[in-house]
Amino acid sequence: MELKPRPRVVSPLHLAAGGHEVDNVPVILVVEDDQLVQSIVEESLTEGGFEISIASTGEKAVALLETSEGKYRALVTDINLGQGNLDGWDVARHAREIDPNFPVVYMSGKDADDWASKGVPNSIMLAKPFAPAQLVTAISQLLNASPPIAPPS
Amino acid sequence: MELKPRPRVVSPLHLAAGGHEVDNVPVILVVEDDQLVQSIVEESLTEGGFEISIASTGEKAVALLETSEGKYRALVTDINLGQGNLDGWDVARHAREIDPNFPVVYMSGKDADDWASKGVPNSIMLAKPFAPAQLVTAISQLLNASPPIAPPS
Amino acid sequence: MELKPRPRVVSPLHLAAGGHEVDNVPVILVVEDDQLVQSIVEESLTEGGFEISIASTGEKAVALLETSEGKYRALVTDINLGQGNLDGWDVARHAREIDPNFPVVYMSGKDADDWASKGVPNSIMLAKPFAPAQLVTAISQLLNASPPIAPPS
Amino acid sequence: MELKPRPRVVSPLHLAAGGHEVDNVPVILVVEDDQLVQSIVEESLTEGGFEISIASTGEKAVALLETSEGKYRALVTDINLGQGNLDGWDVARHAREIDPNFPVVYMSGKDADDWASKGVPNSIMLAKPFAPAQLVTAISQLLNASPPIAPPS
Amino acid sequence: MELKPRPRVVSPLHLAAGGHEVDNVPVILVVEDDQLVQSIVEESLTEGGFEISIASTGEKAVALLETSEGKYRALVTDINLGQGNLDGWDVARHAREIDPNFPVVYMSGKDADDWASKGVPNSIMLAKPFAPAQLVTAISQLLNASPPIAPPS
Amino acid sequence: MELKPRPRVVSPLHLAAGGHEVDNVPVILVVEDDQLVQSIVEESLTEGGFEISIASTGEKAVALLETSEGKYRALVTDINLGQGNLDGWDVARHAREIDPNFPVVYMSGKDADDWASKGVPNSIMLAKPFAPAQLVTAISQLLNASPPIAPPS
Repeated sequence: MELKPRPRVVSPLHLAAGGHEVDNVPVILVVEDDQLVQSIVEESLTEGGFEISIASTGEKAVALLETSEGKYRALVTDINLGQGNLDGWDVARHAREIDPNFPVVYMSGKDADDWASKGVPNSIMLAKPFAPAQLVTAISQLLNASPPIAPPS
Repeated sequence: MELKPRPRVVSPLHLAAGGHEVDNVPVILVVEDDQLVQSIVEESLTEGGFEISIASTGEKAVALLETSEGKYRALVTDINLGQGNLDGWDVARHAREIDPNFPVVYMSGKDADDWASKGVPNSIMLAKPFAPAQLVTAISQLLNASPPIAPPS
Repeated sequence: MELKPRPRVVSPLHLAAGGHEVDNVPVILVVEDDQLVQSIVEESLTEGGFEISIASTGEKAVALLETSEGKYRALVTDINLGQGNLDGWDVARHAREIDPNFPVVYMSGKDADDWASKGVPNSIMLAKPFAPAQLVTAISQLLNASPPIAPPS
Repeated sequence: MELKPRPRVVSPLHLAAGGHEVDNVPVILVVEDDQLVQSIVEESLTEGGFEISIASTGEKAVALLETSEGKYRALVTDINLGQGNLDGWDVARHAREIDPNFPVVYMSGKDADDWASKGVPNSIMLAKPFAPAQLVTAISQLLNASPPIAPPS
Repeated sequence: MELKPRPRVVSPLHLAAGGHEVDNVPVILVVEDDQLVQSIVEESLTEGGFEISIASTGEKAVALLETSEGKYRALVTDINLGQGNLDGWDVARHAREIDPNFPVVYMSGKDADDWASKGVPNSIMLAKPFAPAQLVTAISQLLNASPPIAPPS
Repeated sequence: MELKPRPRVVSPLHLAAGGHEVDNVPVILVVEDDQLVQSIVEESLTEGGFEISIASTGEKAVALLETSEGKYRALVTDINLGQGNLDGWDVARHAREIDPNFPVVYMSGKDADDWASKGVPNSIMLAKPFAPAQLVTAISQLLNASPPIAPPS
């Protein structure tokens, strides 16, 4: 696996889907403050054909979720977010208040045990260390199980 | 359906299972402050062969969970618990901190929508009004899916 | 099991849920033209605490679904409905056009094999002969898995 | 709960299903050598509308499965079967060799922990003590998930 | 992601499986009339190790399914197929009439909302735009959940 | 797909997870005696970001599982293991005796039909021929569904 992230591109598949605009492309919101993990997550998801936006704090993530209605299709969040008061558990709850079906994937090392008491229903906890394929499969499973939503006309 | 709850009895099935003592019998902890709902829940679960203990506040429920290790096999909780500071969401989180696999069923009317953001993973929300069979099936499904635990020798 | 169906009553549980009106009570729509099966289905579901409305043709079922928005919480339908042009497959598709999450249970003898090609997603086929408990469990499983909907204020 | 088992009757629902013969009625094969548990299991399943046949040894159960093709729709088996050489794990494997989709429910006290290594896929282990409703739900869940089979014409 | 599809090759894994012939290799039938989407789907599945056959109309797809018994292991179909009278919903129903367990994945933009009423049970709808990893995961999930079938001797 | 396996490396993601040591990295135990299949499985899993250890006999696999507590996170096993007395079914049962939640994936050609009677619960059978993506998805699904375990401090 190469460390250098690829440039993000609009997947040709999106273009093929009838010319939807960039804002209509599914993007995964990644909340992570560690740059090395950021780049690995980015590379894994980009290789799987996803696009991502990165927020380095819980506050920024919540702001993005609240203002960019419908832009994000899923959340991938670390638990401990160094700066700010919100942790990954908080961000996920906010995301679910906005959309009760929002796919949520947590990534954690020492906090993985708390998932049973602090996680939201129908979410997936990836206990570190995990393989990139687990992340891509987790996101795909949750998106494939969600009720499909027609793109706005 | 009769309204008058039956007396609680040790099910013959328990006796048949090799003479385990009363403390080893599976009991459902029900957290509910409304007496009418209490009696209906009690009747439904008793008819299904379960035994129940009732706590009328979240504080009492948490105290029971913390002191009666292994006595309770599942939690059925209302969300709004008039007296005390803990609501049903809190009780469920405490239960999962003690046992990450603890089966949890919520009952609610107006708060059912909050399940996606406030509920614990692998729980079931019964939106009121619901039929008694839904409660019995919910508890049975969760117990049947839990990894079996050998009774202490 | 007695053959004589009990009178339909508003379950006390519904009253307990804060005084919701009759129209707000969950009712199962049963589509069946055979009187004997009607009475057995009615008795099974009533014993489980459900209320039911019976339609004897697909046309009547569709009319009920279209005019009684939100009244019905699930559909139980036979496949072959002697009178009229609509069969159980058609009724289920109509129900799902109105509400994509509507719980659907089919009952059939010789047509059970067609479920894989003619049924709707996330439905259950009960192949006759089946036990009453299978019907009650099927309805309960589907209702318990549905996203909860807050009762209108 | 009364201890005295009801007489076994052909459920009216079966008759209603177009007059299928007795051999075509779904029957649950119960393998249990303890008479008290036998009668409780029998009462629970009969109340749920199932019919049952009881075998008191693994050998008898396997003989019934091999000679009564298609008669049984599910297996409920204890693990320790005092007489004979076959235990419940063996009986389940035989049942699955005959029909790979055969629903299997185990009942056990001290052997419940072995389910993860000795059970067959897609089976349910009921760890004693369990409530009768758990047994009825377990059988119903497995039957409802099985691909429907059209009755022989 | 490169746009140019790779040449289709028999995967070495297939050879390793004891020298099965080409006809015994699992192939995904893709029904799509848009060349750009065709090539993206082909590339995604080929990268995942699948082989594919492409049909550009529903009629051709049905003809392939009917004549090539056992050759195809899953169906990936667009909904709107410009030429011909059959759409993706029709093709999936035909596939399920031939094999009730046949894995089905739909791809659609504006018709994704119809999945709940027009899709077949146990299928997956990929709402456009979707990532290639979602398609590969969807096919893999469905194949992994299907009952295994021994290769013909 | 290239046949030449990549060198095994500690994934950067592991390093990023707070500097856990090599022994703490998740490794998949692969039991396979055919060198060609070995290399394909290795390449597929390595590409997905997993690390693997290979055992060529059931005896060696069991020895590794018993002595390397917590090192392996999942088992991928062929059924027929030429040398030695243990087959893949045996290895999986041993793995589950040590850890009842251990993820198990079987790979087989002619023995795939035996999965329903000889496999362990919650395992996946990949019937040969299968695509590499099916293997990666199978392992990821099982790992993602397992209860997370905090790394030892």
